[in-house]
Amino acid sequence: MSHAATPYAPPPAYVPLQPPHVADLLAQTPRFANALGGSLHEWIVTEVGDGNLNLVFIVRGPLGSLVVKQSLPYVRCVGTSWPLSAQRAFFEYQALEKEYSLVPKHVPEPMLFLPENAAFIMEHLSPHIILRKGLIKGIHYLHLADHMSTFMAETLYKTSDFSTPTEEKRSQVALYSHNHSLCALTEQVIFEEPYESAKNNSWTSPQLDDLAEVLRTDKALRDEILQLRFQFQTNTEALLHGDLHTGSIMVTETETKVIDPEFAFYGPMGFDIGAYIGNLVMAFFSQDGHATPDNDREDYKAYILVQIKETWNLFKAKFVALWTSSALPVYQANRAGNFQDLFMRKLFTDSIRFAAAKTLRRIYGIAHVEDFKAIENNDLRAACERKATLFSIHLLKNTGSITNV
Amino acid sequence: MSHAATPYAPPPAYVPLQPPHVADLLAQTPRFANALGGSLHEWIVTEVGDGNLNLVFIVRGPLGSLVVKQSLPYVRCVGTSWPLSAQRAFFEYQALEKEYSLVPKHVPEPMLFLPENAAFIMEHLSPHIILRKGLIKGIHYLHLADHMSTFMAETLYKTSDFSTPTEEKRSQVALYSHNHSLCALTEQVIFEEPYESAKNNSWTSPQLDDLAEVLRTDKALRDEILQLRFQFQTNTEALLHGDLHTGSIMVTETETKVIDPEFAFYGPMGFDIGAYIGNLVMAFFSQDGHATPDNDREDYKAYILVQIKETWNLFKAKFVALWTSSALPVYQANRAGNFQDLFMRKLFTDSIRFAAAKTLRRIYGIAHVEDFKAIENNDLRAACERKATLFSIHLLKNTGSITNV
Ligand SMILES: Nc1ncnc2c1ncn2[C@@H]1O[C@H](COP(=O)(O)OP(=O)(O)O)[C@@H](O)[C@H]1O
Ligand SMILES: Nc1ncnc2c1ncn2[C@@H]1O[C@H](COP(=O)(O)OP(=O)(O)O)[C@@H](O)[C@H]1O
Ligand SMILES: [Mg+2]
Ligand SMILES: [Mg+2]
Ligand SMILES: [Mg+2]
Ligand SMILES: [Mg+2]
Ligand SMILES: [Mg+2]
Repeated sequence: MSHAATPYAPPPAYVPLQPPHVADLLAQTPRFANALGGSLHEWIVTEVGDGNLNLVFIVRGPLGSLVVKQSLPYVRCVGTSWPLSAQRAFFEYQALEKEYSLVPKHVPEPMLFLPENAAFIMEHLSPHIILRKGLIKGIHYLHLADHMSTFMAETLYKTSDFSTPTEEKRSQVALYSHNHSLCALTEQVIFEEPYESAKNNSWTSPQLDDLAEVLRTDKALRDEILQLRFQFQTNTEALLHGDLHTGSIMVTETETKVIDPEFAFYGPMGFDIGAYIGNLVMAFFSQDGHATPDNDREDYKAYILVQIKETWNLFKAKFVALWTSSALPVYQANRAGNFQDLFMRKLFTDSIRFAAAKTLRRIYGIAHVEDFKAIENNDLRAACERKATLFSIHLLKNTGSITNV
Repeated sequence: MSHAATPYAPPPAYVPLQPPHVADLLAQTPRFANALGGSLHEWIVTEVGDGNLNLVFIVRGPLGSLVVKQSLPYVRCVGTSWPLSAQRAFFEYQALEKEYSLVPKHVPEPMLFLPENAAFIMEHLSPHIILRKGLIKGIHYLHLADHMSTFMAETLYKTSDFSTPTEEKRSQVALYSHNHSLCALTEQVIFEEPYESAKNNSWTSPQLDDLAEVLRTDKALRDEILQLRFQFQTNTEALLHGDLHTGSIMVTETETKVIDPEFAFYGPMGFDIGAYIGNLVMAFFSQDGHATPDNDREDYKAYILVQIKETWNLFKAKFVALWTSSALPVYQANRAGNFQDLFMRKLFTDSIRFAAAKTLRRIYGIAHVEDFKAIENNDLRAACERKATLFSIHLLKNTGSITNV
């Protein structure tokens, strides 16, 4: 059976970039050289990638700065023993362009794709910090729920069948279905390994050994996870970011920018909403571990709970408003009757369930989160993680999936 | 936003074939010339296409016969005013090859794709007749449920995520997502027009005017149809035939062959099962219109009801057997617990609901079926169609509760 041609493949000559190459690359294009200012030897290139997969270079010149991100043909935090298609740089750039066209306020500007290097150039966000770090510090972001609900409502609604003619939608599904290596990675590390005896797994041990055992043996829990996995594999509701955790969001007190959509694909909307909400849930349960004698973090815990609630409420209001103002004829609200209401209820349930799955994988699988890792006392850390675990299992077992829609 | 490259496009020089061209084409390839036998001027070419979309030529020589099917860049039964991508010949050939590899007993052998002509060569089925005609005549086919359940179980299971690694599955979704013009046509004529005032619509009038009005105005019914449409648009469970009505099946008393998968795409499994079952439902309700003084057709009605029941029961048994013997580790039955059971129940409900939608479109939309059209007395025809309509509406509004045959 033949395959559709891959839209992009890194060339054979492709090698990991070193700082001097990065500067050379930028020097080749006048608009980048001008933006940095001065000359090549004045530019300072720093590799800052703290993520798990790629190289990220910040290039600073006398007048400005830029970011170059490159995909390696393997998982960076593991090494060459775990290959992963460097095609993902192409899909990340495609998705950044799409997101930037829909919500320019909340996405760094994508500037140029570099096919020879499986890399691209984008706006340098400064003085933004990673949201996860801000949440660990206990910083209040007043516009966060507003901004994130806008990002999710605009990107999910406007790439869905509610607003996109079917030929265009299916062409885009064709394109992003080639980003399958990243989908396979998600299926493995989120929906599979935490519920198996996998060598990538780890947890705070021995404190959580009993719960790790529950994940491996509870058949009812496994059923719920399998349903989510199957939904992830067979549903193409919208173009997802695909990795929308609090480490993929950069913030100041007034701005919110979403980075790193390399896992972009057409999938169930609840997977993105759940990723974000699940990471807020972890931020919440980790706060006791960050309490100090002068700050018991109770106020901040209340702030995070409000974030969760507000994010969903604003998301729902914005999504429904877009639907009301700009649906294709067949999905127009006056004709859709009860369908819209059913859809939004199912989406809420999906989101909660995916949030729970996202939480469990961060406590028992590969790639743990700083929220819990930063708690130095292991008993205290495990106590926080235990609460998050029990809460997630409870959600999965008690959100009867709505089967229609 | 860029698009993945189209896997096939007809060349600019493409023209509809005439019988002499067809003979010339076959003469170019020794294995076809040998199979037909004799020489070019002894071959008899007949265009037999009775379908709505394409040209079908039977070529008969002294030793054998072959079929050449060509896609036109428009809908044949409407004309050039309704363009439709001739790419569909490529997807039909891809799907035929896949189906033939899985169930060679029930698919004509695909022999050669002709990219210059948006056409292909396949086995000539003889003395097979179109199943729909057999059902109108009242012929009993003893192996039909066995054969059709095998065809559906093998093609649906073996292209699903239960047995196909995710990279391969998503590559195939990428390929078939390019067959979007045919999906758009389905969405229009099945899930939209019968519920609107569309100029393509027709029904037995004035007898069914009241029910046509119900389709256009019943909000609860519209909700059910919209849910099915959304499922059709966002679900990629398996590679579907996409047009599995009784006019796409050719039979003898002992053989069953499925033709015409030009609508092939990755969609919800219930759409294929529902297409077949919906057409049996229509065959059932049309029987009173074919009764004669010597044959009241009551036996045959009972036969069709048994067909429906047996088809589902055998399908379910075969599908579950495949699942038990050959699932990927994560979906293995011993680990999937209750998931398999839930899946099969949902698939049954989906199938019934799609069957109902398929029935309604054949009575109120474009492209009616011979089962009802062959009834000459309009009052009698309308009485049969009325029963089929009320039954379908009932199914759509009450399937929440049905989980068993
Ligand atoms: N546009 C940007 N501006 C400033 N810093 C960035 C930008 N993009 C990435 N970074 C930094 O690089 C880190 C890793 O980037 P990310 O895109 O998340 O890579 P990975 O895919 O490897 O996770 C981020 O956590 C952030 O600190
Ligand atoms: N392989 C075949 N052998 C014999 N007859 C065939 C074959 N394929 C098609 N036909 C005949 O041609 C008719 C139209 O073919 P079909 O593939 O259904 O075309 P369409 O896509 O236009 O509906 C069928 O109803 C059948 O009578
Ligand atoms: Mg990252
Ligand atoms: Mg990261
Ligand atoms: Mg990343
Ligand atoms: Mg046909
Ligand atoms: Mg056809």
